[in-house]
Amino acid sequence: MMRRVGILGGMGPQATILIMQKILDATRVRDDADHIPLIVDQNPQVPSRIRHLIDGTGADPGPVLADMARRLVAAGAEALAMPCNTAHHYAPAIRAAVDVPLLNMVDLAVARAAALAGPGSPVGILASPAVRKVGLFDAALSQRGLRAVYAPDEAAMLAAIRQIKADGPRPEARRALRAASAALAAQGATVQMIACTEFSLIAEAVDKTAATFDSMDCIVQAIVTFARKSPNKGANGHRAPAPKLAKRRSNPTMEERR
Amino acid sequence: MMRRVGILGGMGPQATILIMQKILDATRVRDDADHIPLIVDQNPQVPSRIRHLIDGTGADPGPVLADMARRLVAAGAEALAMPCNTAHHYAPAIRAAVDVPLLNMVDLAVARAAALAGPGSPVGILASPAVRKVGLFDAALSQRGLRAVYAPDEAAMLAAIRQIKADGPRPEARRALRAASAALAAQGATVQMIACTEFSLIAEAVDKTAATFDSMDCIVQAIVTFARKSPNKGANGHRAPAPKLAKRRSNPTMEERR
Repeated sequence: MMRRVGILGGMGPQATILIMQKILDATRVRDDADHIPLIVDQNPQVPSRIRHLIDGTGADPGPVLADMARRLVAAGAEALAMPCNTAHHYAPAIRAAVDVPLLNMVDLAVARAAALAGPGSPVGILASPAVRKVGLFDAALSQRGLRAVYAPDEAAMLAAIRQIKADGPRPEARRALRAASAALAAQGATVQMIACTEFSLIAEAVDKTAATFDSMDCIVQAIVTFARKSPNKGANGHRAPAPKLAKRRSNPTMEERR
Repeated sequence: MMRRVGILGGMGPQATILIMQKILDATRVRDDADHIPLIVDQNPQVPSRIRHLIDGTGADPGPVLADMARRLVAAGAEALAMPCNTAHHYAPAIRAAVDVPLLNMVDLAVARAAALAGPGSPVGILASPAVRKVGLFDAALSQRGLRAVYAPDEAAMLAAIRQIKADGPRPEARRALRAASAALAAQGATVQMIACTEFSLIAEAVDKTAATFDSMDCIVQAIVTFARKSPNKGANGHRAPAPKLAKRRSNPTMEERR
């Protein structure tokens, strides 16, 4: 029996579909029943993180995310995951609302970065300017002796995110992501993370000189592992076999060393 | 403010992802917030419809579907939809469990067939053999002066569905669907419906001599229309603009006459 994971989704809705596809692709099956059960709140009406954190206008998404978390748990979720990096700024509101674990994309991505990058290395963050502004990854990276470096052209990153949200990725969004990762590589960031689920939709566009991974793939792996770990076996129980990585739509630049 | 639709999903999980993509593609947007809110129970553990209806073994999916419906309504769904044709055999159990409407794929597909086919015409049904066995479409088609005709090689259809569920569509599944639609066309079925959401994943494979539509597209349209109709406006309120049809992954053989 597998455990059901609740997805705080809709940020954006295309990224939520992508994570569902990656979870499906990560599961070898013989029939439907071998796939992982999810309950997905595809809620595109969560107040804009960009408006709240960058523009300084608009409603606080925290209470809406807390409500979504409560509803997902009421609907049977035994853990939660949120395919939106920026929204992890509101993780404390979610954790305060429910008793089930939040599989934390920030913690998982920082652990992956630490496995890839040498001590003291800069880690390139391909994200919304809001992520730099709130320092979403900085403290966790710093605790592991790493430091975050951000793409210099923040206006271009924000424009690319808005363009993808409006009508799906166009070539100019891919060009902006490639330019940002090239600029980070030029600054010495040989390890980079895609830390915006809109960029997960165009992960193949990154500059190929750095080892780049996608924080979404970290959370996919955590969801599969959680779902397969029988609650009766407990924390020390038999470890589920490592999930096969996404066979379709995978980021070809992702460096897997696990 | 849009109304939230609950999706009884996981039958199969890839078809649930496809309907979410079609709903997204049917919505012109400027930002996330213009998209339709969904709550999706991606439950691949619903007892097999094939085992219950064809093999005569295995659990009744009805009570599980009723439970899912209750949970979705508790999580905020104001209507339900189920991207699995065969599972509509259990629609009475769902309707008995909740007070919100079930946007019924069978009724919607039959209405579409009646708009396309002349009186007395045969309508080709590309579906699981379970659909013929339980006569899922027969009574509703007959009420509109139409009659259902089924693909003769039922073993090939069932094998194709099982293959798609196991590891995604392979060429032999596409060949089986094409052969079935060609056989139905040879029997005079100039109008045909894809009535299995596994076949929705390979809708482009149908024989091109008939006008073929996908029952999944009927329900996508109903979901978009329901979500956009403000509850305050009521049944006689302002009609939402007709949704743009799926721009990606659309079935190129679909004949739209609305």
